[in-house]
Amino acid sequence: MTTPPPPPTKIGAILFPGFQLLDLCGPLDVLNILSGQRPLSLSLLAATLDPVSTQHHLHDAQGSRFSERLVPTHTFAEPPSDLEVLLIPGGTGARKEENIDDVVRFLRGYYPKLRYCLTVCTGSAILAKSGVLDGRRATSNKKAFSWVSINLICLFVLLFLPSSMIGMFD
Amino acid sequence: MTTPPPPPTKIGAILFPGFQLLDLCGPLDVLNILSGQRPLSLSLLAATLDPVSTQHHLHDAQGSRFSERLVPTHTFAEPPSDLEVLLIPGGTGARKEENIDDVVRFLRGYYPKLRYCLTVCTGSAILAKSGVLDGRRATSNKKAFSWVSINLICLFVLLFLPSSMIGMFD
Repeated sequence: MTTPPPPPTKIGAILFPGFQLLDLCGPLDVLNILSGQRPLSLSLLAATLDPVSTQHHLHDAQGSRFSERLVPTHTFAEPPSDLEVLLIPGGTGARKEENIDDVVRFLRGYYPKLRYCLTVCTGSAILAKSGVLDGRRATSNKKAFSWVSINLICLFVLLFLPSSMIGMFD
Repeated sequence: MTTPPPPPTKIGAILFPGFQLLDLCGPLDVLNILSGQRPLSLSLLAATLDPVSTQHHLHDAQGSRFSERLVPTHTFAEPPSDLEVLLIPGGTGARKEENIDDVVRFLRGYYPKLRYCLTVCTGSAILAKSGVLDGRRATSNKKAFSWVSINLICLFVLLFLPSSMIGMFD
């Protein structure tokens, strides 16, 4: 019998303007608790080191000033070299190309190094845009399924699953 | 019949070192969505305008670098004057006095202005320390109930409730 590899310890997560707060903070809260019991590291990646806001065009249209800003630790240009897991949140902001262009380019280059790439909700659309899902089975949030499947250029096969959170494993 | 007052629109939330990410981001994500449908404002209050980290002593003991930093919009010294709702998260960081001393002082002065003050988990202990719950019925997360009830100076009555999230209404 071969010994299974140790569980991953080097976690990354993606920030982009208009990301969905809970998509990111739900999974990270679980890992926050685990990291009080065993050594883990977290890197938060964004286009620049400026704080990234959840504000998006629907808030703007309402005149709402209701957003939270999270501080990145790394840029896409200078990421840690040894991330094992990457989490990609969804969010209304993902519906504007300019918010996720940098993310898509980063994923295209970094994806092959990862052990696991996890997406939440429309985060699957961002990953799909990078092309790494081409020819693979994947899914997304049922409520956003039409947008995800119609708007993607890549040719992956979308299947319904009951949960809006999916993991895609190499 | 009298017309009920309009629902509140000016929301505040408290940040302190070692706050529990989900305690804050769960409720705020719901309001983020609502704020795309009607005008709402959010203020994030902390001791200074420096980003506030979820890192706490259990992470430090493990050698984990696993935390998120949120950016405040106001200090306790210069808060908005017209907040209607205030959310107080819990968190392992709340177990160190130096992390919450400023919060407690702020609550003591600001609480009478609020329409609603909501606490999650051990956020109830922070509110209780301010004294505004003295002589009132209150509760907390069952798992942290002993710590909350033993360590508080004030004389409020704690009761078990099934949920770890409670609202305290004037």
